[in-house]
Amino acid sequence: MYRVDLNSDLGESFGRYTLGMDERVIPLITSANIACGYHASDPVVMAKTVSLAKEAGIRVGAHPGFPDLMGFGRRNMAVTSQEARAYVLYQLGALEGFCRSAGLKLQHVKPHGALYNMAAKDYELARGICQAIAEFDKELIVLALSGGQLAHAAQEMGLRTALEVFADRAYEEDGTLVGRGKPGAMITDEEEAIARVIRMIKDQTVRAITGKDIAIRADSICVHGDGEKALAFVERIRQAFGEAGISLCPLEKLC
Amino acid sequence: MYRVDLNSDLGESFGRYTLGMDERVIPLITSANIACGYHASDPVVMAKTVSLAKEAGIRVGAHPGFPDLMGFGRRNMAVTSQEARAYVLYQLGALEGFCRSAGLKLQHVKPHGALYNMAAKDYELARGICQAIAEFDKELIVLALSGGQLAHAAQEMGLRTALEVFADRAYEEDGTLVGRGKPGAMITDEEEAIARVIRMIKDQTVRAITGKDIAIRADSICVHGDGEKALAFVERIRQAFGEAGISLCPLEKLC
Amino acid sequence: MYRVDLNSDLGESFGRYTLGMDERVIPLITSANIACGYHASDPVVMAKTVSLAKEAGIRVGAHPGFPDLMGFGRRNMAVTSQEARAYVLYQLGALEGFCRSAGLKLQHVKPHGALYNMAAKDYELARGICQAIAEFDKELIVLALSGGQLAHAAQEMGLRTALEVFADRAYEEDGTLVGRGKPGAMITDEEEAIARVIRMIKDQTVRAITGKDIAIRADSICVHGDGEKALAFVERIRQAFGEAGISLCPLEKLC
Amino acid sequence: MYRVDLNSDLGESFGRYTLGMDERVIPLITSANIACGYHASDPVVMAKTVSLAKEAGIRVGAHPGFPDLMGFGRRNMAVTSQEARAYVLYQLGALEGFCRSAGLKLQHVKPHGALYNMAAKDYELARGICQAIAEFDKELIVLALSGGQLAHAAQEMGLRTALEVFADRAYEEDGTLVGRGKPGAMITDEEEAIARVIRMIKDQTVRAITGKDIAIRADSICVHGDGEKALAFVERIRQAFGEAGISLCPLEKLC
Repeated sequence: MYRVDLNSDLGESFGRYTLGMDERVIPLITSANIACGYHASDPVVMAKTVSLAKEAGIRVGAHPGFPDLMGFGRRNMAVTSQEARAYVLYQLGALEGFCRSAGLKLQHVKPHGALYNMAAKDYELARGICQAIAEFDKELIVLALSGGQLAHAAQEMGLRTALEVFADRAYEEDGTLVGRGKPGAMITDEEEAIARVIRMIKDQTVRAITGKDIAIRADSICVHGDGEKALAFVERIRQAFGEAGISLCPLEKLC
Repeated sequence: MYRVDLNSDLGESFGRYTLGMDERVIPLITSANIACGYHASDPVVMAKTVSLAKEAGIRVGAHPGFPDLMGFGRRNMAVTSQEARAYVLYQLGALEGFCRSAGLKLQHVKPHGALYNMAAKDYELARGICQAIAEFDKELIVLALSGGQLAHAAQEMGLRTALEVFADRAYEEDGTLVGRGKPGAMITDEEEAIARVIRMIKDQTVRAITGKDIAIRADSICVHGDGEKALAFVERIRQAFGEAGISLCPLEKLC
Repeated sequence: MYRVDLNSDLGESFGRYTLGMDERVIPLITSANIACGYHASDPVVMAKTVSLAKEAGIRVGAHPGFPDLMGFGRRNMAVTSQEARAYVLYQLGALEGFCRSAGLKLQHVKPHGALYNMAAKDYELARGICQAIAEFDKELIVLALSGGQLAHAAQEMGLRTALEVFADRAYEEDGTLVGRGKPGAMITDEEEAIARVIRMIKDQTVRAITGKDIAIRADSICVHGDGEKALAFVERIRQAFGEAGISLCPLEKLC
Repeated sequence: MYRVDLNSDLGESFGRYTLGMDERVIPLITSANIACGYHASDPVVMAKTVSLAKEAGIRVGAHPGFPDLMGFGRRNMAVTSQEARAYVLYQLGALEGFCRSAGLKLQHVKPHGALYNMAAKDYELARGICQAIAEFDKELIVLALSGGQLAHAAQEMGLRTALEVFADRAYEEDGTLVGRGKPGAMITDEEEAIARVIRMIKDQTVRAITGKDIAIRADSICVHGDGEKALAFVERIRQAFGEAGISLCPLEKLC
């Protein structure tokens, strides 16, 4: 039997501002990446998001980002490894406050936006993030880009590591994502995207942009809940998984 | 034998900005109230402050404040009780991240500035703060103004409660502080201030501004480390305590 | 011929967060109150909002608020009169940057949320705001609650003053708004609301909640663009004004 | 007769935090670069700083930075050229508010920290900054690193441009600064530093790190006021200039 986790970024509203359709995507996923107040969210939103996740019985993880609310944590910032470590500890702890209050246990950590992208390429930054995680709770799962430096650093430090793949992105032969700027970087056909993901899960293989088949491990698929189209895609991927004999399962049972 | 705690606000630097002489006041006190990134501090400062406290062997507590860095958390803000609860949970958790990393346990919580002052007068606000503390860790000690609503709410909810007195402030007959605007509100003579505090500790009594003696409980004295004069006063009070047979002792052994 | 201004709060998006239907409400109003980056907005949003207003040919004003993005500037903050003066100068200037870039002239200033409400009641705060306006540009129009302290301070300082009324609020006999908590505070019937406003404009009279008719001056009506229902109401009020012989006209031609 | 401007970064305090000895460095310089609330400062500090500059009769300029108070604007941020343009317009305007209030005219603009360094190397970013300046006021002087892209873009756009040199830094043969990491990057001997600057001003020449003399234009020298040693150096450089027949003169008379 094949199993995979579906993760989605949640709790990214802030104050008077609402973002995402959290209540509708929560029943469709197994793991929630919850914003921690740096790139998005605030304490009131965090309390509510943890509460929604608890009611739905899904697992919660931290989604720490850069201290750049104005840029939604999507802009690269030249922080040091020690700053990254401190920022992640801060955000992990902050979310832990709401998990304790709700009686939930943190399952995983997935960095957000530019922090995720930079950590996939910068080993020192990835080390700083993993140090924070290891110091906070050695049982936490690091959810990282398949083939990236964060996964590498986490495994090296003995942390539980889950690998994330993207349904809508092409891969290079070395297992990294094809840069968004290049032709063919995005898989725009939904059926093709779903077929590719199913093959990754069942055969641990994906066809790279060069045409060559490469090995890949897919513990979790990232899905979005920020619009009707995104939600419809989650429904479709769930249905296709069912037909392909793939069951959904939170990360903690996979790693 | 008489015992009392000395507490001081620490870790209030931010980024490029330095505030306070933390390294010099730490050896003189027994409990540190550590800023949590809302009214002051940032994750790098928090990591350093927790580390300094650990080396010195003093106890650490959270010093949560309003989200008002520009006003240093000193301006009243009309937050709801639920907002206060969420803000305190967030900050408690954030500090917990650094305590875990350092292998320390949080001892207490003392709200900062306007949050402290408002919670001393506003029962609903005090309840919100105490709910956060109870949900986070039922063993945490609430360090509150003697005679105020925060102490009242904490005791009512069964939380461990420590009462704080001020050496340099006059008291009304009902045990509340004389407002700073009123004549005689500040005890400017240092010897008198010290004598008053010693009497509060030994006799559980203080002379109110009206001239009448009233009952008071003094678990902790708040001292400052933001200047040579303040540090000299801490040295004096420590010496006077020694001569009066009062020993210093962290809150957790008093409550 | 009767004339009135329709004003609306615009440009309250922030970073990744969108708020309001600015492009749809702009063609329906005569004066835009543009957020300045404290309670809402950021420089990119401000540039875009000023540009939209320019294309539509409507007048622009500053909508300064408290430095409380998390609370959307809706929470009372105990700032001093001098802090308020400095915050307003900062925000007026910031918006002026985008107006210069677009070749527009600022027409007016309307404080936002809690700053508006507090300035309506607190004369010293109102003075601080008016000092900033006078120092920045003596020709700016202060758009203030009819009957409030901001209008009073502005008139006293010789500033051009426009009075704002609300279609959906009841008035006390002294011309102040009935507090939202009281029964009858909100005028929920839209036809009644429109009839009341038309009477305010034509007869300079409104029936207070006590049943007594009182004098009132209505230079501008505040309308909202944050939903289909709100937009439909603006359409209706415009139509009703047309039928009643009331034409729309920006503030600068009224004061 | 030789003339040069001395500029210094001022007004970098924030809320409860004090930075720099503004009152002592102001009498020693001719142009102040005033922080605008993004990397440092707040409206109350800006009002005070503009007021101090006015009393001393020195010229004021804007010192816009990245929206990164926690990092003091010293960390590279991957903003777009349009974001940079909007951030600079916002900060120029904000400072203009206080200049109007004080009856002063802005003389120049010097980007801060990482924005300064990135703009010296990134032509597109430099264009965005210069667009903001041109749109705000075509008479403003751009104070830029000698030999960098910001100076290049400013000159290309027809803006008045002043070139800044550093007494304590070595230069490459192409006129750019030797990177701080390289041996010999810093000129640590104060007498040598002063002699080099005097030669730059009088002979428009500096010896590059390779030993070759290169041409350089020095309109302004950046000095610091954040400590006794820095202040003493400013006194020395002023004395040495006097002896060398170099008089101090604000930028507006040089460009």
